[in-house]
Amino acid sequence: MSPQIESSERSETDFLDPDVLRKARVAIVGLGLIGGSLALALKGQCALLLAADPDPRTRALALERGVVDVVSPDAAAILPQADVVILATPVRTILQLLDDLPKWHPGHAVVLDVGSTKAEITARMASLPDRFDPIGGHPMAGKENGGLCHAEATLFQRAVFALTPLERTSMHARAMALALVEAVGALPVWLTPETHDQYAAAVSHVPYLLSLALTLATTEAAASLAGPGFRSTTRLAASPPKVMGDILLTNREPVLTALQDFRKQLTALEAALASDDEEALLALLAQGPTRRKALLVGR
Amino acid sequence: MSPQIESSERSETDFLDPDVLRKARVAIVGLGLIGGSLALALKGQCALLLAADPDPRTRALALERGVVDVVSPDAAAILPQADVVILATPVRTILQLLDDLPKWHPGHAVVLDVGSTKAEITARMASLPDRFDPIGGHPMAGKENGGLCHAEATLFQRAVFALTPLERTSMHARAMALALVEAVGALPVWLTPETHDQYAAAVSHVPYLLSLALTLATTEAAASLAGPGFRSTTRLAASPPKVMGDILLTNREPVLTALQDFRKQLTALEAALASDDEEALLALLAQGPTRRKALLVGR
Repeated sequence: MSPQIESSERSETDFLDPDVLRKARVAIVGLGLIGGSLALALKGQCALLLAADPDPRTRALALERGVVDVVSPDAAAILPQADVVILATPVRTILQLLDDLPKWHPGHAVVLDVGSTKAEITARMASLPDRFDPIGGHPMAGKENGGLCHAEATLFQRAVFALTPLERTSMHARAMALALVEAVGALPVWLTPETHDQYAAAVSHVPYLLSLALTLATTEAAASLAGPGFRSTTRLAASPPKVMGDILLTNREPVLTALQDFRKQLTALEAALASDDEEALLALLAQGPTRRKALLVGR
Repeated sequence: MSPQIESSERSETDFLDPDVLRKARVAIVGLGLIGGSLALALKGQCALLLAADPDPRTRALALERGVVDVVSPDAAAILPQADVVILATPVRTILQLLDDLPKWHPGHAVVLDVGSTKAEITARMASLPDRFDPIGGHPMAGKENGGLCHAEATLFQRAVFALTPLERTSMHARAMALALVEAVGALPVWLTPETHDQYAAAVSHVPYLLSLALTLATTEAAASLAGPGFRSTTRLAASPPKVMGDILLTNREPVLTALQDFRKQLTALEAALASDDEEALLALLAQGPTRRKALLVGR
């Protein structure tokens, strides 16, 4: 089964103005790992690059590294200058920013968020005044360590970048989002917000919960034998708690459903082992290498 | 809690003859990823390096790369020349080899296995005739791809190498095992077979089962959004099924117990999310980064 890509999007965006991004003044709210890496990747590809971040050390680093043209502690101070607003904070801060945006920005703008869940955010986007042209986005990239200090211009190279337009999203906003995705070297995948959240629960949010539960279940004594397998299986447990809390709490039902799918498989493995049913166990184990390869093909 | 290291072992092996390995003729049975990497790392550090492997392509590659001095399809043909026998096959093949060893080797030898579970193997070792001097071992190293073609001399550099002596294991065998571990650049950890199996269940066998269950639960459609997190969480699912089946079937009780510990943590996370208990959820999430760091400290 191939992903539910809205294939009509592709032909619409064939009319993409190649200069759409080059002429745009882009404001990024939140210069963490994702916002900072977007800024580094977009540098020189748009007319003006503005950013807001509440952390003084982040702002100092942004100026020192020349990450953006202008940086402010206050989103309200930079937003009026922006043709494109990118919201790159934890999900529930994005929801708050969407509520504040009409107060802070008097004019027209494309609004793209890069939060990890999409249904609640795009629902909130639907309430924006007509002068805003909103679209959801989510780059499938990250690292063990967050913050601008770990940001890299190449973070999104060949990464999947989900785009979830609203019904009201114009062709201009779709073209702008696609130009941004391509400018940072990522691969666009067009999805509905609900489909995105269901897929992301399965391949990102549930893996995080497993990684965390494994970390919490392991004693320091047992960890004396930890090797590369334990390291990679628990890598996601080190994700920033605030970011992950926002994700889980705004994607509860899809995560709980995907957890049930996982539990079913784990229970089948456990039952085969507990009953010493060697044939059943080996049949399940034999699927691992080929199944993983099929899931990651081309990635 | 620090690991249950048998600290008395350390002082005993202070009397280690620095030449114990250099004088030894070493036979490795099984030239897969682990056996092959051991051979590459031991090359030039012992008097003679012999190997047996049933696969003709593996033997051809071993000769072509000069991995060992002698290679044979038949363990019986090389074992009589060995002072040290290293069993590097899947666990249940090791059990079979231990049954056959007295027929094939008429003399004295240290016998070290490098299988991933230790209780069943060391119990079988206890039945060997007195002319054999057995000790269990398990290097905590591996890679996504198996086979001699992926073997590397550096695979064990700074990896933990568990050693599980029997009551009958002599100081000579302990010194030889320690010399082997140090010769390949690994870090020895002395454990009882039972403690090893309990720890390995928690940090290796259960992570494999989670990784596999996640892989089996994920649809190809959802995998269109798979990023680096999914890749690392499912890495272990690609482990060789035959190797993993032997491990699980010879470590059933410790694995089932460790699975229960994991399930308890997952259930707590799930309950906090399902009941929308934000405080409880964030308290659990907040433990992830520090807990993982504590478990992997120094590794």
